Amino acid sequence: MPYRLYYWPGLPGRGEFVRLALEEAGAPYVDVGRLPASEGGGAGAVVAARKGALGGIPPFAPPILQVGDLVLAQTAAICAWIGERHGLVPADPEARAHAVQLQLTVMDLVAEAHDTHHPLAIGKYYEEQREAAAVKAAQFRTERMPAFFSYFRRVLAASGGPWLLGATRGYVDLSLFQVLSGLDYAFPLAYAREVPAELQVLRQRVAALPNIAAYLLSPRRQAFNEHGIFRRYPELDG
Amino acid sequence: MPYRLYYWPGLPGRGEFVRLALEEAGAPYVDVGRLPASEGGGAGAVVAARKGALGGIPPFAPPILQVGDLVLAQTAAICAWIGERHGLVPADPEARAHAVQLQLTVMDLVAEAHDTHHPLAIGKYYEEQREAAAVKAAQFRTERMPAFFSYFRRVLAASGGPWLLGATRGYVDLSLFQVLSGLDYAFPLAYAREVPAELQVLRQRVAALPNIAAYLLSPRRQAFNEHGIFRRYPELDG
Repeated sequence: MPYRLYYWPGLPGRGEFVRLALEEAGAPYVDVGRLPASEGGGAGAVVAARKGALGGIPPFAPPILQVGDLVLAQTAAICAWIGERHGLVPADPEARAHAVQLQLTVMDLVAEAHDTHHPLAIGKYYEEQREAAAVKAAQFRTERMPAFFSYFRRVLAASGGPWLLGATRGYVDLSLFQVLSGLDYAFPLAYAREVPAELQVLRQRVAALPNIAAYLLSPRRQAFNEHGIFRRYPELDG
Repeated sequence: MPYRLYYWPGLPGRGEFVRLALEEAGAPYVDVGRLPASEGGGAGAVVAARKGALGGIPPFAPPILQVGDLVLAQTAAICAWIGERHGLVPADPEARAHAVQLQLTVMDLVAEAHDTHHPLAIGKYYEEQREAAAVKAAQFRTERMPAFFSYFRRVLAASGGPWLLGATRGYVDLSLFQVLSGLDYAFPLAYAREVPAELQVLRQRVAALPNIAAYLLSPRRQAFNEHGIFRRYPELDG
C-alpha cells in the first residue's frame, strides 16, 4: 500500500523533509498535492485533508501522511514514523529518542529561517513586514544560524560520525541536508561564511546516497522559490 | 534511579511541561536547576549541562532530562519518553505517533506565544522590540490563538473525549493544560473571549487529577512571571 503525502503544490516546504525520507526508504508514495485536480490532487485535495477529510485525529497543517488507516501530521512525527519502519533510525529506544531530539532541533532551525521573512504575521506578505524582517534576518545570520551550525558540528563530534547518530545514515541526516540546502539558497553569503566544513561534508554525503542522488535529478524534486520556507531575498543576506 | 531535570531556575518555562509529566507519573525526580549551587544545582549546573557536561548526544537547549546513561533534550521528545514509560500514552504505535503530533502542535503554540514578546530577536529585551511585539501579539490574539483553540476542540470531538486521545489522560493533556494556563496568565482578556468551553473543561479536568492537584499546591509548582514564555504585558492583550 503506497503512502499518500498531502502537501501544498508549488513549493518544497516542509513536505520535502517527508519526501526525502520516503525516497531514501525506497517507499512508494503518491504526492497528492502535485497530481492534477482531475486525478484527485492539487491544492484542493490538500485543503480538504487539512480540514479533516481523511478522518482520524485531525491535522493542524500539512504535511499530512496517509497510509492504511493512519493519518499523521507534523513533519517530525511523520519522519520518525517512516524512519522507524524503513531502517532510517537505529532500533534501540535511546537512539530513536535522540533522533527525535535532533529532528526537532532541525525543525526549530527551519522555523527560525522561515520567520526571517515573516517575523510579524504569517498571514501577511513579506512586503508588509520588510523592516522587521531586516532586523530578524540580521540576528538570524549572525547569531542563530551560527549557533545551530556549531551545535550540529558538536553532535557529529559526539557521535563520532560520519552521520549525526554515528555509523548509519538516518532520517535526521536527510533533514539536515535539506535545511543546509535551503539556507544556502536563501542566504548564500552568510551560509558560505558560517557553514562548518563538517556540515558541508555531511550535506555532500547525503546528496551522494544513491536513492537521494537519483531523486535530486528527478522531476519529483522541486527547486526552492520565494513561496516557500527558504526565500532568496538578497536584502536579508546582509 | 530518579530522573534529573535540568532547566533554568526562576521561571516555569518549557521545563514545566516535563515537570507535569513526571508529577502525573509519580516518578521521583530532582529539579537540578532549583537546587542550591552548594548542592550542585542552580543556573550554573544548567549551563554546564547545556554545554554537554552530561555526555552523550549534546543538547541544543534546556530542558534536559538525565536518567541512567540517557541524556535527552527537546521538550516533546522528553515528554514522549516519560509518557511511554509511565502509562501517559496508549501502547499502540498509531496512538503514540498521534500523541507526538499533538505535542508538537502544543509546542508550536508555545513558540508562537513566546514570539509575541520577542518577535525580532531572542537575544534582546522585550523593551527593545515593543512596537513589533504589538503587531505580532495582535495577530496572535485574533488569528493564531483562536486557530489553535479551534483545532484542539476538533481533536477532542474526533477522539470522542474526554481526553485529547480518548478515554485515558496522557502527557499531551498535561501540556495543553499548561499552555492554556499560560495563555490565561499572559492574555487574560483575549483568553476569556476566545477559549472554547471544551478546552476549559479539559483544563479543569487536568487540574483535578490527584497527582496534579497535589503538585499545583506544592512549592514545586512555580508561578508564571515576566521572565518566562508567558508574560503578562497588558499592552499586548489588546
